[in-house]
Amino acid sequence: MTSIIQPRILKGFRDFLPADEITRRTLLEKLELSFRSYGFLPIDTPAMEYAEILLGKGGGETEKQVYRFQDNGGRDVALRFDLTVPLARFLAEHREKLSFPFKRYHIAKVWRGENTQRGRYREFTQCDFDTIGSDSAAADFEIIHIMHRTLPEISGGEVSIRINHRGVFNQFLSRLGVLDASVAILRTVDKLAKIGEEATKKTLGEVVGEDKAIEILKYIAAKGSFDETLAAMAEAAGPCPELERLKTIRSFLLDAGIEDEVVLDPSITRGLDYYTGVVFESFIADMPEIGSICSGGRYDNLVGLYSKESLAGVGTSIGIDRLIAGMEALGRIQKQASSAPVAIACVSEASGAYQALADKLRKEGIACEVFLEEEVLTKQFQAAEKKGISWLIIPDADKPLTAPFTLRNLSKRENREGLRMEEIIGILKS
Amino acid sequence: MTSIIQPRILKGFRDFLPADEITRRTLLEKLELSFRSYGFLPIDTPAMEYAEILLGKGGGETEKQVYRFQDNGGRDVALRFDLTVPLARFLAEHREKLSFPFKRYHIAKVWRGENTQRGRYREFTQCDFDTIGSDSAAADFEIIHIMHRTLPEISGGEVSIRINHRGVFNQFLSRLGVLDASVAILRTVDKLAKIGEEATKKTLGEVVGEDKAIEILKYIAAKGSFDETLAAMAEAAGPCPELERLKTIRSFLLDAGIEDEVVLDPSITRGLDYYTGVVFESFIADMPEIGSICSGGRYDNLVGLYSKESLAGVGTSIGIDRLIAGMEALGRIQKQASSAPVAIACVSEASGAYQALADKLRKEGIACEVFLEEEVLTKQFQAAEKKGISWLIIPDADKPLTAPFTLRNLSKRENREGLRMEEIIGILKS
Repeated sequence: MTSIIQPRILKGFRDFLPADEITRRTLLEKLELSFRSYGFLPIDTPAMEYAEILLGKGGGETEKQVYRFQDNGGRDVALRFDLTVPLARFLAEHREKLSFPFKRYHIAKVWRGENTQRGRYREFTQCDFDTIGSDSAAADFEIIHIMHRTLPEISGGEVSIRINHRGVFNQFLSRLGVLDASVAILRTVDKLAKIGEEATKKTLGEVVGEDKAIEILKYIAAKGSFDETLAAMAEAAGPCPELERLKTIRSFLLDAGIEDEVVLDPSITRGLDYYTGVVFESFIADMPEIGSICSGGRYDNLVGLYSKESLAGVGTSIGIDRLIAGMEALGRIQKQASSAPVAIACVSEASGAYQALADKLRKEGIACEVFLEEEVLTKQFQAAEKKGISWLIIPDADKPLTAPFTLRNLSKRENREGLRMEEIIGILKS
Repeated sequence: MTSIIQPRILKGFRDFLPADEITRRTLLEKLELSFRSYGFLPIDTPAMEYAEILLGKGGGETEKQVYRFQDNGGRDVALRFDLTVPLARFLAEHREKLSFPFKRYHIAKVWRGENTQRGRYREFTQCDFDTIGSDSAAADFEIIHIMHRTLPEISGGEVSIRINHRGVFNQFLSRLGVLDASVAILRTVDKLAKIGEEATKKTLGEVVGEDKAIEILKYIAAKGSFDETLAAMAEAAGPCPELERLKTIRSFLLDAGIEDEVVLDPSITRGLDYYTGVVFESFIADMPEIGSICSGGRYDNLVGLYSKESLAGVGTSIGIDRLIAGMEALGRIQKQASSAPVAIACVSEASGAYQALADKLRKEGIACEVFLEEEVLTKQFQAAEKKGISWLIIPDADKPLTAPFTLRNLSKRENREGLRMEEIIGILKS
């Protein structure tokens, strides 16, 4: 007897069984349709690249998390850990072949050897959309517009979209005389919701002193209407082009009639260094505590590592796993374990004609499964119910493939007899 | 000045620019819709697994091609090189949670460090569909039915589907007294189309002697109608259950009215060891020389490495890259570099109302791009043409967001003036 290898997967990695995979795919298909409706284009890049490309000048937290190894040819390679670095390399490499502004989306898996204890995964899907090669407010606004149109629809409820401008914050820090410490300040402020006000004040105090820590906390705490917050920021930071950009975005929101759906929130700073302009976060209104489900912002120069010419862009990334976890917790996901609403029972020795019968439904756009083996009907009812199929067509055992047929409603456990196929199609389509 | 990292990707890996990625995604979406119309369910598994799981008892050609390395926790891991081994592990691990027969599809990337010189890629997409837990002829037939319904539709032309039965061939080899050498014989026969009859005869002769080599070549050369070939095989192999299975499949083909679309071809053997029953290959009729675009067969026990209970199945894998290469060579792919058929020109200072205007089209299911920056119209015409957009809506510069509008047909370079938005929607939908 041969020995058995214990079937198991790596920690932080996941199998997706049909019900979960149908949920994921349905959600990603809706997102993709939405991106396309704005003329955004799909691209794809390799899962594996030269480590030098992905890690750039390297160092830091990222490097420790990356899956990096030597391939069979001795090359120093790594798995992508996000879709932003590959985008930068892609733009530098294919610039001549692309039309700018280049509006692209990219949905793909990425890998990070992170600590899995906080519910993080080592393999997860990223879903990014960006406009590159335009520094206009219209490009910033388009990303916000897509978020506003798409996020409530796919999440099945209200979404709070919050925006801010990194440059205004920097202008304020400059006035305060602490611009040199901006990286540390930004990272601390970004953790406000997680660590609380007291801890933030303490950490900020260690960097800039207590008085200035209080002023920074006051600046980011501004609450009120968009216009009120804008006025408070103007007073604290003084006039600057970055404030004008926020005003323009505000006027675009009014033009488009969605001014009530976007909040100006000076506490949104995003931890990442490369944002230089407007930044976004967004939260499921009924479950803000799981964190931002869609975040991003404007960056001055994405391709700097790979090209001497700069390219500005603006974009954002949807956290699919977090979004699905939130929707599940809110009971908004109806798990579906079937691709087909209807199946045909096998009531006689199997025959090729069952598939021909199913084709009549498929040609009408109705997915139809064929049960492959003859069994007592009660077993076939159970199998169909277990699979989440709604309807079962039961032919006559003596002449299985000609009308009339019986149609069973599996949730009600009711049969309708004596139906022609056209009548069944009518019922299934209604 | 900082130094630039030369942007480049690994040999055998590919970037997909929008026109190519749209082609790939459109094709995969059609396939997925087809699988679902038969009630097949999607699953997904990790890209990376324990090397022990993926390589099993290991050895051979596969092991040399696999990307295998130690992760940061010192685990011996590898990237999946197909979707069959992960399926086997998945079935052994989740058996209790699945309904059998389990009909599943899986579309995902796999990695093999192969020699790239023969136009092979180191990263490519596999597209598999299988029915597991049924050894019925109805399950074999359903896979053939899906191939017949799907392959001509997605490839845009005739596809030749060829089937055979491994067991009948083995029965014939047994009668010939050379069953012991079946693995070597199968591998040699599988290469017939590549290496030609003379070389095959020579190699076979070295294994079983010249006389038997001639008999084997005669057996696999049988040509004619399905029934004629079946009769020739019956004469050579003698009566056996495997022949009965082929007869049942033949009767199913007749029942379903697709008897002319499937060829019985005794030269189809598939090189892989694990097939035990019916086997399939399929070829683009106008370009058979690129090889089979969809191949597979029945296997007695997929999960043997990971479970003591066996599970039989039947399934097949579509070679997406090869299929697309064939369609491109035949001029059947109209490359499309745009997601949206229509764009709105920017004729005044940008404003949020352009997005509101575009939303009127999007709500009608028409994807619509918004041009972000004011430019002379001829530049916007060029940009739209370069992107492959068909129509451009040109508002009036003085009152850009109210009717009437001009609609430009970009391929004809003709304008229609004075249109209301409803009229434009009517034209775009017609």
